[in-house]
Amino acid sequence: MKVAIVGGTGYGAVELLRFLYNHPHVTVSKIISHSNSGTPFSDVYPHLVNVIDLEMESLDISQLAEEVDLVFFATPSNVSKNYIPGLIDRGVKVIDLSGDFRLRNGKEYEKYYGEEMASSEYIGKAVYGLSEINKNEIANATLVANPGCYPTATTLGLIPVIANNLVNYHSIIIDAKTGTTGAGRSLSQGFHFSEMQENFRAYQLGVHKHIPEIEQVLAGSAKEAVQVSFTPHVVPMTRGIMSTIYVDLKEKQSTKQLLELYKEFYKDKPFVRIREEGIIPQTKEVYGSNFCDIGLYADERTGKLIIISVIDNLVKGASGQAIQNMNIMNGWDETTGINQLPIYP
Amino acid sequence: MKVAIVGGTGYGAVELLRFLYNHPHVTVSKIISHSNSGTPFSDVYPHLVNVIDLEMESLDISQLAEEVDLVFFATPSNVSKNYIPGLIDRGVKVIDLSGDFRLRNGKEYEKYYGEEMASSEYIGKAVYGLSEINKNEIANATLVANPGCYPTATTLGLIPVIANNLVNYHSIIIDAKTGTTGAGRSLSQGFHFSEMQENFRAYQLGVHKHIPEIEQVLAGSAKEAVQVSFTPHVVPMTRGIMSTIYVDLKEKQSTKQLLELYKEFYKDKPFVRIREEGIIPQTKEVYGSNFCDIGLYADERTGKLIIISVIDNLVKGASGQAIQNMNIMNGWDETTGINQLPIYP
Amino acid sequence: MKVAIVGGTGYGAVELLRFLYNHPHVTVSKIISHSNSGTPFSDVYPHLVNVIDLEMESLDISQLAEEVDLVFFATPSNVSKNYIPGLIDRGVKVIDLSGDFRLRNGKEYEKYYGEEMASSEYIGKAVYGLSEINKNEIANATLVANPGCYPTATTLGLIPVIANNLVNYHSIIIDAKTGTTGAGRSLSQGFHFSEMQENFRAYQLGVHKHIPEIEQVLAGSAKEAVQVSFTPHVVPMTRGIMSTIYVDLKEKQSTKQLLELYKEFYKDKPFVRIREEGIIPQTKEVYGSNFCDIGLYADERTGKLIIISVIDNLVKGASGQAIQNMNIMNGWDETTGINQLPIYP
Amino acid sequence: MKVAIVGGTGYGAVELLRFLYNHPHVTVSKIISHSNSGTPFSDVYPHLVNVIDLEMESLDISQLAEEVDLVFFATPSNVSKNYIPGLIDRGVKVIDLSGDFRLRNGKEYEKYYGEEMASSEYIGKAVYGLSEINKNEIANATLVANPGCYPTATTLGLIPVIANNLVNYHSIIIDAKTGTTGAGRSLSQGFHFSEMQENFRAYQLGVHKHIPEIEQVLAGSAKEAVQVSFTPHVVPMTRGIMSTIYVDLKEKQSTKQLLELYKEFYKDKPFVRIREEGIIPQTKEVYGSNFCDIGLYADERTGKLIIISVIDNLVKGASGQAIQNMNIMNGWDETTGINQLPIYP
Repeated sequence: MKVAIVGGTGYGAVELLRFLYNHPHVTVSKIISHSNSGTPFSDVYPHLVNVIDLEMESLDISQLAEEVDLVFFATPSNVSKNYIPGLIDRGVKVIDLSGDFRLRNGKEYEKYYGEEMASSEYIGKAVYGLSEINKNEIANATLVANPGCYPTATTLGLIPVIANNLVNYHSIIIDAKTGTTGAGRSLSQGFHFSEMQENFRAYQLGVHKHIPEIEQVLAGSAKEAVQVSFTPHVVPMTRGIMSTIYVDLKEKQSTKQLLELYKEFYKDKPFVRIREEGIIPQTKEVYGSNFCDIGLYADERTGKLIIISVIDNLVKGASGQAIQNMNIMNGWDETTGINQLPIYP
Repeated sequence: MKVAIVGGTGYGAVELLRFLYNHPHVTVSKIISHSNSGTPFSDVYPHLVNVIDLEMESLDISQLAEEVDLVFFATPSNVSKNYIPGLIDRGVKVIDLSGDFRLRNGKEYEKYYGEEMASSEYIGKAVYGLSEINKNEIANATLVANPGCYPTATTLGLIPVIANNLVNYHSIIIDAKTGTTGAGRSLSQGFHFSEMQENFRAYQLGVHKHIPEIEQVLAGSAKEAVQVSFTPHVVPMTRGIMSTIYVDLKEKQSTKQLLELYKEFYKDKPFVRIREEGIIPQTKEVYGSNFCDIGLYADERTGKLIIISVIDNLVKGASGQAIQNMNIMNGWDETTGINQLPIYP
Repeated sequence: MKVAIVGGTGYGAVELLRFLYNHPHVTVSKIISHSNSGTPFSDVYPHLVNVIDLEMESLDISQLAEEVDLVFFATPSNVSKNYIPGLIDRGVKVIDLSGDFRLRNGKEYEKYYGEEMASSEYIGKAVYGLSEINKNEIANATLVANPGCYPTATTLGLIPVIANNLVNYHSIIIDAKTGTTGAGRSLSQGFHFSEMQENFRAYQLGVHKHIPEIEQVLAGSAKEAVQVSFTPHVVPMTRGIMSTIYVDLKEKQSTKQLLELYKEFYKDKPFVRIREEGIIPQTKEVYGSNFCDIGLYADERTGKLIIISVIDNLVKGASGQAIQNMNIMNGWDETTGINQLPIYP
Repeated sequence: MKVAIVGGTGYGAVELLRFLYNHPHVTVSKIISHSNSGTPFSDVYPHLVNVIDLEMESLDISQLAEEVDLVFFATPSNVSKNYIPGLIDRGVKVIDLSGDFRLRNGKEYEKYYGEEMASSEYIGKAVYGLSEINKNEIANATLVANPGCYPTATTLGLIPVIANNLVNYHSIIIDAKTGTTGAGRSLSQGFHFSEMQENFRAYQLGVHKHIPEIEQVLAGSAKEAVQVSFTPHVVPMTRGIMSTIYVDLKEKQSTKQLLELYKEFYKDKPFVRIREEGIIPQTKEVYGSNFCDIGLYADERTGKLIIISVIDNLVKGASGQAIQNMNIMNGWDETTGINQLPIYP
């Protein structure tokens, strides 16, 4: 199968290439980058010299539709919504790693993304690609809205207790931490090595795009509105997300009981690993892999459950899950091409 | 004035030396280390070769009492309680950087520290050395229990709203992050560079020693019991603590109003800097200095106040605050010897 | 084919597992660790929980010989020489990642390794596993002495000019830099995160074990004695080696001419990439992969050639090359199982 | 004494402020930044909020000359040469941290700096501010050309053997490594945290500006031409330079003999520390301080002397040495305001 990647010079694209290079059923035949048309990909990413020989091209929807079967969009916000309808209409499947088709509520989209949402016709066609939760819908989708990195870690950590109605839906606090690749490749003073090294900071308090996304996913599971307080931080490391989640348990539950519930909930999900009691996963333990590892601690003293969920933001939080969704859409084993072990240390 | 440092090879001791080296009123005349008696200090810390010429000595309380006026203990838990009474009885002032004299409740001490607490006679003499809050008591103290690193950042961040009765005392969530020096100099696999680099993790969920300390300080301010959920994490950097604190406001307050309150509360405190609206302090902005920087965000959507408080764990969280307390105990300007600017970048 | 790994808890072993997990022709059926017999491997390396289900076992040569076809030794110095003869005698193939069978000269072995060398009978059977140079010998070997990390980067960088007699054999200066995993998993103060972070240092000047190994390999290529000055340094990062090599050109050569020579020399070698003029490879560009990337700069002003050669010390410098050698020994394509792209960023 | 800093937003300026803040004889009364005129300094560097209250101003030479006694230029190349003559003519002393007045040879300046050198009249007035070597000339200077970071570490390491004619002047190889602050505050892809972390690279082979500077300083010491091969590298850490220097000894010398020579040479120099035999200094051991630490290893096997010299590039390599020079120019103790200990860890 032939695929194209739009948004060629971002970290999402390069991570898609890393996995697709060894995928048995797929060839990347085009890399699209408006600003770098005509430039060999390995000029921008010299680690791929002698390996990836493609030149980047500009975007021509009709030509693309003729030549490839599936397109990954790894573009900034408010780009893909302009091009995806044209591809869908021409029968091309699309997996969108950006946020353009994730939200259902146009007002929230405008508030957090600053532009008008895509038309409801295409929003209606989009399936939210949280692979472990929506596998059946993804299997039949033509357009998958691939989840954000924070929402993936956070909602996989929360859904078992939300779906089982075990926690207060309005006391959810998410203290999230990401490595720097979450901010992408564009330069800024805050990500200049000299100023990011030996530094830890919070950012975008109360206004991060992933707030409505998390609340929408959780509401879908709760069947009622859910409100979260979400505070992202950036860690001086390249990869990895940890969501430390605080919820009030409606009734007393032991850590052991809850771990059983989680293991049962994710029993057929090869990429979710529930840790044993007393073990809390660390970000490095999923580095470079598609795993989401979850640990729990039910604090009897305070009545709170603390959920710790870790992923590699570029893999399960972006490109890995995108390929997992591609596998599901095509009826292949969902681990195909992405069953690489974490790189450690 | 002559001082001694007990616990010579830890990071607390070396950081005391960094500041005391240029302190105009103090000479460090002895460094005590049981296990390194007879070894030149600069053999253990070669960055001080040609500068610090002392040999480490073993501990002899009566001799120490004759030779120095004040002793800093920078020892592990459950050490200083065995020696401090002998010094106090001989009229020597003591500043204890360990936790042995911080708690008032013997049962909690046993639960979290695993041994019996020091006798109530000496516990009663100890003043909790949170410089900005207890300045008067510290000025008259013979024994100062220097606060823990997390409690310093956390309680300085919380006390203004606790003391003014603006928040729910049972909804306090503290998501804390520290650099690796917080774990000290002893070797362990988790702090081996190869396994700590590019790694972020939580630890000691629900059982950290600083939980009762934080609750005791806040209760002192609230005049009633306060309960916190405290989760520490370790960041791949050497220095810095951030406490991200979530509280439920009893009544709606704007960020602006609360910042005014904080500025008023800390108006004469040279080491506490309240940031302007929209600005959140970063750990690197206090690196190597005795500042505690605080930022606020009152989230109207959720009714929560998010308090972000940062310190350098080895300075305001340990040795810097210890010297600040020494200054106060001696009637010197509290900034003497510790008014160095943050090192950036 | 069934293989075993001896030295189970080191980084060499875990990196072998990362690649062998997806190798189409091989199953790892045993992991041997004397000190951890009976412990599940994923207790030591939790990033492999749910994936690697083996328990570590103690070493029993005769049993091992019955159950597996090939054994990897990823043990410290002076261990494998005691066990490999027993396996060879029983017809098992061995790839030794330690230095025990690399040197030919017993006196040098004793000088640098501090013990007597293995018996000459078995030394004679060992083939030095520099895959690109000794492919034919490796194909027929029963015992491969897998090269050291520094020798791999260094000799691949030097052999084209040595073999072509273009440089002075006694003016070779190798300034080498490694990430911290080169020092292994054992704890030491110098690799404690707090003291390694933001630190750069040289070590073992004039006495490093890799000096005789590099000189032996180069002498084999030069057909006469070669002397090198080799100074290793450690960089605050986990992976990657750079050898910056300074040689005096016998006659003036342009960078362009020399790059042509290198490209020709390595034209059929999939893991060696010669960079274009003006481009110098960086360690991150081979991170996690089996590539060795080489850049050149011929300085007309000084008459020196500067060769920069980078590898991932755990992959091409250890486990990746070991698997490459296994592939060659078994007649498989040499890239099987190790054609993963560098992880970037 | 009143001083001004021109080039306000660079790391050189902020590091000058860190030391001058506690300097007993100096007040910084102006910070000049063309592009940030009118902006409070602490808007650009929030770690100085509440501490440095100056607004940046644009440059007006005549006004500046009336208001301050000495001006530090911490500007990019080819800026200060346009302004310094005007200040000198008005009787203001100047310390230039840029390279504009370091070289004596106009052709070399043009080759490496790409523009015409300042007029020979003012070049003639400039004293090269290598404090330990040129103290007398600096004491009487009106214009000090503060040395580059690499030249400082390198020439302090080499001068004792050069001045004593112990080494071959044409076999000098300098393999230099710097932290990222050496590249300044301007953004570039190579210093984006995600791409610099876990990365090590060489750069500017054969064309670095510091080549002619090093050769000029060494020639001054040798009284004849000296040629060096200089290769800079960048380390994933913020601060620190190590020069690893390889020279051919003319006659056999032991490490011990050479260390004695170095100790004698630098016996009255408070900022140069010669390490004992067997000890090699590390960059972290001078972090944040004005020390230059030097270690030696004379390799009997190869006849080479390896000199390892470390500094903090922003302190002894820039702002610290600038203040040391200011102290010397004013007849103050040369350690005034810069006798802070290294920050460790």
